[in-house]
Amino acid sequence: MRIRVINPNTTASMTETIGRSASGVAGPLTLVEAVNPTMGPASIESHYEEALAVPGLLEQVAIGEREGADAFVIACFGDPGLDAAREIATGPVLGIAEAAMHAAAMLGRSFGIVTTLGRTVGRAGELVHRYGFADVCTEIRACEIPVLALDDPASDARNVVVDECRRVVDAGADAVVLGCAGMADFCSWVSGEVGAPVVDGVSAATVLAESLVRLGLATGKRGEYASPPRKAMTGLLASFELGAPAPAPF
Amino acid sequence: MRIRVINPNTTASMTETIGRSASGVAGPLTLVEAVNPTMGPASIESHYEEALAVPGLLEQVAIGEREGADAFVIACFGDPGLDAAREIATGPVLGIAEAAMHAAAMLGRSFGIVTTLGRTVGRAGELVHRYGFADVCTEIRACEIPVLALDDPASDARNVVVDECRRVVDAGADAVVLGCAGMADFCSWVSGEVGAPVVDGVSAATVLAESLVRLGLATGKRGEYASPPRKAMTGLLASFELGAPAPAPF
Amino acid sequence: MRIRVINPNTTASMTETIGRSASGVAGPLTLVEAVNPTMGPASIESHYEEALAVPGLLEQVAIGEREGADAFVIACFGDPGLDAAREIATGPVLGIAEAAMHAAAMLGRSFGIVTTLGRTVGRAGELVHRYGFADVCTEIRACEIPVLALDDPASDARNVVVDECRRVVDAGADAVVLGCAGMADFCSWVSGEVGAPVVDGVSAATVLAESLVRLGLATGKRGEYASPPRKAMTGLLASFELGAPAPAPF
Amino acid sequence: MRIRVINPNTTASMTETIGRSASGVAGPLTLVEAVNPTMGPASIESHYEEALAVPGLLEQVAIGEREGADAFVIACFGDPGLDAAREIATGPVLGIAEAAMHAAAMLGRSFGIVTTLGRTVGRAGELVHRYGFADVCTEIRACEIPVLALDDPASDARNVVVDECRRVVDAGADAVVLGCAGMADFCSWVSGEVGAPVVDGVSAATVLAESLVRLGLATGKRGEYASPPRKAMTGLLASFELGAPAPAPF
Amino acid sequence: MRIRVINPNTTASMTETIGRSASGVAGPLTLVEAVNPTMGPASIESHYEEALAVPGLLEQVAIGEREGADAFVIACFGDPGLDAAREIATGPVLGIAEAAMHAAAMLGRSFGIVTTLGRTVGRAGELVHRYGFADVCTEIRACEIPVLALDDPASDARNVVVDECRRVVDAGADAVVLGCAGMADFCSWVSGEVGAPVVDGVSAATVLAESLVRLGLATGKRGEYASPPRKAMTGLLASFELGAPAPAPF
Amino acid sequence: MRIRVINPNTTASMTETIGRSASGVAGPLTLVEAVNPTMGPASIESHYEEALAVPGLLEQVAIGEREGADAFVIACFGDPGLDAAREIATGPVLGIAEAAMHAAAMLGRSFGIVTTLGRTVGRAGELVHRYGFADVCTEIRACEIPVLALDDPASDARNVVVDECRRVVDAGADAVVLGCAGMADFCSWVSGEVGAPVVDGVSAATVLAESLVRLGLATGKRGEYASPPRKAMTGLLASFELGAPAPAPF
Repeated sequence: MRIRVINPNTTASMTETIGRSASGVAGPLTLVEAVNPTMGPASIESHYEEALAVPGLLEQVAIGEREGADAFVIACFGDPGLDAAREIATGPVLGIAEAAMHAAAMLGRSFGIVTTLGRTVGRAGELVHRYGFADVCTEIRACEIPVLALDDPASDARNVVVDECRRVVDAGADAVVLGCAGMADFCSWVSGEVGAPVVDGVSAATVLAESLVRLGLATGKRGEYASPPRKAMTGLLASFELGAPAPAPF
Repeated sequence: MRIRVINPNTTASMTETIGRSASGVAGPLTLVEAVNPTMGPASIESHYEEALAVPGLLEQVAIGEREGADAFVIACFGDPGLDAAREIATGPVLGIAEAAMHAAAMLGRSFGIVTTLGRTVGRAGELVHRYGFADVCTEIRACEIPVLALDDPASDARNVVVDECRRVVDAGADAVVLGCAGMADFCSWVSGEVGAPVVDGVSAATVLAESLVRLGLATGKRGEYASPPRKAMTGLLASFELGAPAPAPF
Repeated sequence: MRIRVINPNTTASMTETIGRSASGVAGPLTLVEAVNPTMGPASIESHYEEALAVPGLLEQVAIGEREGADAFVIACFGDPGLDAAREIATGPVLGIAEAAMHAAAMLGRSFGIVTTLGRTVGRAGELVHRYGFADVCTEIRACEIPVLALDDPASDARNVVVDECRRVVDAGADAVVLGCAGMADFCSWVSGEVGAPVVDGVSAATVLAESLVRLGLATGKRGEYASPPRKAMTGLLASFELGAPAPAPF
Repeated sequence: MRIRVINPNTTASMTETIGRSASGVAGPLTLVEAVNPTMGPASIESHYEEALAVPGLLEQVAIGEREGADAFVIACFGDPGLDAAREIATGPVLGIAEAAMHAAAMLGRSFGIVTTLGRTVGRAGELVHRYGFADVCTEIRACEIPVLALDDPASDARNVVVDECRRVVDAGADAVVLGCAGMADFCSWVSGEVGAPVVDGVSAATVLAESLVRLGLATGKRGEYASPPRKAMTGLLASFELGAPAPAPF
Repeated sequence: MRIRVINPNTTASMTETIGRSASGVAGPLTLVEAVNPTMGPASIESHYEEALAVPGLLEQVAIGEREGADAFVIACFGDPGLDAAREIATGPVLGIAEAAMHAAAMLGRSFGIVTTLGRTVGRAGELVHRYGFADVCTEIRACEIPVLALDDPASDARNVVVDECRRVVDAGADAVVLGCAGMADFCSWVSGEVGAPVVDGVSAATVLAESLVRLGLATGKRGEYASPPRKAMTGLLASFELGAPAPAPF
Repeated sequence: MRIRVINPNTTASMTETIGRSASGVAGPLTLVEAVNPTMGPASIESHYEEALAVPGLLEQVAIGEREGADAFVIACFGDPGLDAAREIATGPVLGIAEAAMHAAAMLGRSFGIVTTLGRTVGRAGELVHRYGFADVCTEIRACEIPVLALDDPASDARNVVVDECRRVVDAGADAVVLGCAGMADFCSWVSGEVGAPVVDGVSAATVLAESLVRLGLATGKRGEYASPPRKAMTGLLASFELGAPAPAPF
C-alpha cells in the first residue's frame, strides 16, 4: 500500500519531518511517500497563502494518482484543497485536521485544539464545524508561534505548546489536538507532560488513511465528488486542464 | 496487539460472524478475540434489552482488561455501555456505530444509515447527535428485519438491505453506514450493488481501534473517564464491585 | 393516584429523604411510594455505576407496573434507564434531570445546573442536549461533594452548594437546577439565600408526573417505546425475561 | 390557589371553552378564572393581530396581579406577550404552546404539531426553537381551518384535525401537540382516534402552572424579568403606565 | 424613493437624532422621514415597554403605507413589531438589529454587540438566533446606561461604550454592533477609537432598505407575510381594524 | 465610488453579462468595473475548478487594490477565495452567495436556493451554514443545467429555472435565491412568474458593497483578516509574493 503524504507548503525540511512522523506509525507493508509542491508559499498562515498552496497540492495529487498512490494525506491543519483533491483522487484523501479531530473524538467526550498563530483560529473553527465537532471541541488556543519557528532549537516553542495544552486539559477537555503539522515531533512528549492523550494530525491521518484502504473504502463518487467535468483552463494554470494532451509540468 | 471484540448479546453464532469480519480486516500482528457475555438478551432491539446487555458486556471488558487486551470494540450498533467501558478499560474502546460514522464521514460530505427495526431509529439518531454527525447524516432508514433474521438464508434480507441503501445514495448521500453488526457479512456485496462506499461498523471499529493503539492513544483519564470510585455493590450484581476480593464470576 | 419514585441506588436513607421530598409536594389524593433496588451500587457517580444501577431500577418499574403504579419517577440526576423504563411502563416515566430542566425552563430564559462531582458534568451536559436545553442552560458547575456526603451534618455541603448557585445566578441565569437527588432537602433554603428560583428534581418530577396522569397523558407506544419484543434472557439476568413463567426475583 | 387563564382574543365563547378545559383538569383546591381582554382582535391568525392582542392581555395580567392570581396562562398558541407578562406578574406565567411542548416532550423522543392556518406555522416554528424543541419537533402541519371555524358544528374541523394528527404519528412522532386553544375540546377524542398521546395546551398549561405554584417556583426576577422601570406612557396607552396614579381602565 | 424611519418610542429628541443619522447616509435621491408614535413608552428597555410600543409603531407603518413610503426602518434594537409590520407594508421593512447584524456579518467572521441595560441582553440574544448569527456573534455586553441617558452631555456614556467595544474586539471579534438607536451619534468616533468597524443599526438599516428597493425586492407575500385577514378589533384599539371605515386616529 | 466585480472564470461573455447586471443597479455616482482573470477555468462547477480559479481571482483583487477600487464583488456562487480576498483588500469584499442570502433573509422568514448542477449543492449548503442561514434556507434545488448553457438561447434554461423556483415557493419559502451568476439576466422575469421575490447575487452584492462603502465600513483588520505576513512564494506562483519587487504579471 502506498500513501502519499503531501506537505502543501514548499519547505523541504518540514516535508522531511512530516514524512518521518508518517512513516513512524505506518504498518509494515505500507510505503509512505512525503512530497511537497513545486510552487506556492513557504508556509501557510493566512487564507491567502492557503489559497495559493492549493494548485501545487493538486498537482501533487494528480502525480500521485498517476503513480498509483492508494491514499493521500494533506499535511496542513487548514486541510487546504481537501474537497478538490477528493474529486481527482480515486482512493481516500484525509486532511490532518480532519483526521486528528476524528481520532481525538474517540478518546472521550471532548477535545481542545492548540494551534500556531491567532489568525488561524478562525479557519480551525470552521473545520471544527464542518466535521461535526462543534459540541465536542471545547476551545481553540493559539500559541502565537509561526509555523517555521516551531522547530527552531533556540525557540521556546515546545514549552509554550505544553503550557497551552495543559490549559486545555485543566479546563476539562479529555484530549488535545495539535493544530499544525510542524508540531508532529513534540506530540508524545507533550502527551507525557500533560497526562492526557495528545493527537498529531500527520500520524493520525496516515494511520486512518491506511485503515480506510484496508477497509476497501474510498471517497463516494456518485455525486459531489465525481471527477470534475473536462474544462478549458488557461494562462499560468493551463497545465491543470484535466486530460490535457501535454501534462508536462506534473 | 490484542483487540477484544465484544458482541453484547448472547447469541454465539452472531459472535462468530462478528469475529470473522473483525479478523478479516485486522493487521497481520493483531489478534482479534471475539467474545459475548454469559448473561443478558439473545439480541438487542429495544432500550430494555440494551440496558440488560450492559452488565454482561462490562464483565467482558473487565475480563479483557485483566487478560491484557489493548483495545475493545463493542459490536452492537447502539454502542451500549460505551461510556462505562471507557471508565474501566485502559486502552481505547470503540462502539461500532461510532466507528462506522467516523469512517463514513471521511468519504465525502454525507452518509445515510440503514438499520434493522424502525424502533431502533431513535437510538441511532441519538448517537448521530452525540458523535457530531447531525449535519452529516442525511437519513436513517429501517428495513424492518429483526437482527436474528438477517442471516437466515431463507430470508430476503440482503435484497431489502440493498434496496434501502440504494435509496440513501440516490437521495444524495456519499456513503452508507450499515446499522447492525449482523449486516457485516453483506457489506462489500452491498457496496458493489449500489456503487457507493458502504461501511460495516465491526470492521471499521476493529481497524480504528488498532489505529489508535498504534498511535499510542487511549481514552483520556483525567476527568469523566477516570476509573470509577470504589463503591459497595449489592445483590445479583455484587460481583461487579471493583477491586472486590472475590471477582469469581469474571 | 399512585406514583412510584425509584431511587436507583441501594442506599435506604437516601430513599427516605427522596420519599419525603416527593410526598411533600404531591397532591392530597396522590400516594407516593419511594423504593430502591435490591441490587446495584450504593450511589451513582460514574457511568459504570449508572449502568449497573439500571437492572435493579427496571426490576422496580416492573414491580410497580404489576402493582398498578400510575407513573414513575427515576430519582437520580443521570436519568438512568429512562428510555428502557418507558418501554415497560404503561404510565408516564420522568427522570429528575428531565423534570427539573423542564420546570426551570418555564421560569425565564435560562438556567444553570449545580451538581456533585466534576466527573458527572459530561452526563449532565448530554442530558441538557437530549432534552433540548443546550441554548437555555448557561453552565454546569460541580461542587465536588460526593453524593453520600451531601447529608453529612459535619460537612459544609449546604454552604458549598449555595456558593455555586450564587455564581450561576450572578452570571445571569434566571434559575438554578440542583443536580442530585441528595440535594432535595436544601432546595428552598438555597433559593432563599440566592434570591432566585432553585429547582429540585425529585419534587419537580413528582408534581409533573402527577400532572401528566391528570392530563390523561402517557408515553407514546406506537413506535420506539412500544413494549419490547419477547426475547430469551440468560445467566444472572434470566429473571428479566419479559413474560417469563417465574418472575420470582421481582 | 387561583390561576388566571387569559384568552388573548376578545371572543367570549372561546373564553368559555378555554375555561371549561382548564377547570376540567385543575386540582380540587384550585380556582380557574378564564378571562379575555376588553380590547383587541376577535381571533389571532397573524403577527398583526398577535401584536394588537398584547396590550389587552397585559391589562388582564395587571388586573389578575392586583386581584391576587397565583399564576397565569396565556391561552393562544403564539404565546403572545409571554416575556412582558413575566415581567409584571409575581407568580409563574405559562404560554399554552410552551406548556404543550414541554408536556409532549416528556412522552417520548418526539412530537409533531397540528395547527390552524398555514400562515401561523412560522410563528409556531419560532417558538419550537425558542423553547429548545427544534430536534424534538418532527413537523408542523396546518389544517387550514380558521380559529373561529373550529367549533362550528357544521364544519368538518374535527375530522381534518384527526387526519393531520394521524399523518404526524404515522411519520414517526411519539406524540402530537394541538396548535390552537380552540382545539381543546377535541383533544381526548383525537387521541383515541390516532392511538397516541395528544396534548392540548390549555389543559397542559393549567396543570403545569398549578405544579409550579405547588413547587414554590416563579419567574426569576433578578435580571431580564425584573419589574420594568417606571416610564412615561402616552396617548391611547397612557393607562398602562406602571404605578400611574389613575389606572382607571383596569 | 421615500424611506420612513420609525422611532418606536415617543421621545421626539431621539427621533431627531435618528433622523439625522439616517439622512446622513441615504443616497441623493432618497427622502428619509423620521417619525415616532403618538402613543406608548418614552423609551424601550423591557419586554413590557416593547410590547406597548408596537401598536403606535404599526399605526406609523399604516400611515406611511397610505402616504406612499417605499420602505420602513424600525429604529429600536429589539426590532419590535417587525413581523407584523411586514404583513401590513408593501415595501421592505428592516429592524435596526437585523440590519446591523447583517452588515457586521459581511465584515469578517464574527461580531460582538454592545447594548444598554443588562436586562435587554436576552432579547438581543433571541434576535441573534432568529437572524442566524448564533455562531457569528461572539458576545453581547451591556454598558448599563439607560437609553435616555446616552445623549446626556454630562454622562460618561461615550467612554463607557468605547471601553465595552474595545473588550469585544480584544477578545477577537472582527466588528462591533452598537445595540441601541441612541448610540448612532457615536458610531464613527467609537470605530476610530477601537480600530475596528463599528456598525450603527439606524444608518445600516437605512442604506440596506434603500438597497432592497433599488433591487426591486420586498417582503414575500405568498405565505406568512400576506396581508392579515380582515378581523373585528374592539375597545381602545378599534381604530386598528384593517379596512375600517373611519381610520381617524391615524 | 469604484466597485470591481470579478467574474472568477475566464469566460468574457459571462463577464459582460455580470457587468451589465451590476451596472444596472449601482447608484449614479458609482463606477462598476467587471473583470475576469487571465488564468484558470472557463467555468466553475467543481471544487477542483473553484480552487484553480482562486489565484487568478486574487490577482484581480491585487490589481483592483492598486488601482483604487473601493470594494470588490466575487461573482461566482461558491464565493471562491472570499477569505483570502478580504485579507488583501482594504475595502469590503462580498461574495454573491453571501450577498444574495443576506438580502433574501431580510424579505421574510425563509428562502430556498435554485442552483445549476447537483454536484454544487454541497458547496452551496456549506455556505448556507457558514453565513448562518441553516435554519432560514428551506432547500437547495439543482436544475442540472451547466453554467455555460444558461444563456444558450436554444436551451430551455429559463423555464427550468422558473419551475424549480416555483417548487421552492410552493413549499413555503418566502423568497428564492438564484445560485449562479449566469442567472442574473433572468431574475426579474422569474420573480414575476413565481409571484415571489427572487434574488440575483450579482446585483445584490453590488448594491450591498456600495452600501458598506457608504456606511464607511470595511473588513475588520485586527485579527484573522489582517494583511498576510510577507512570505516566500515560488514556482509558477512566484509573482504572487506580496511586496515582491516585480509584480509584472499583475
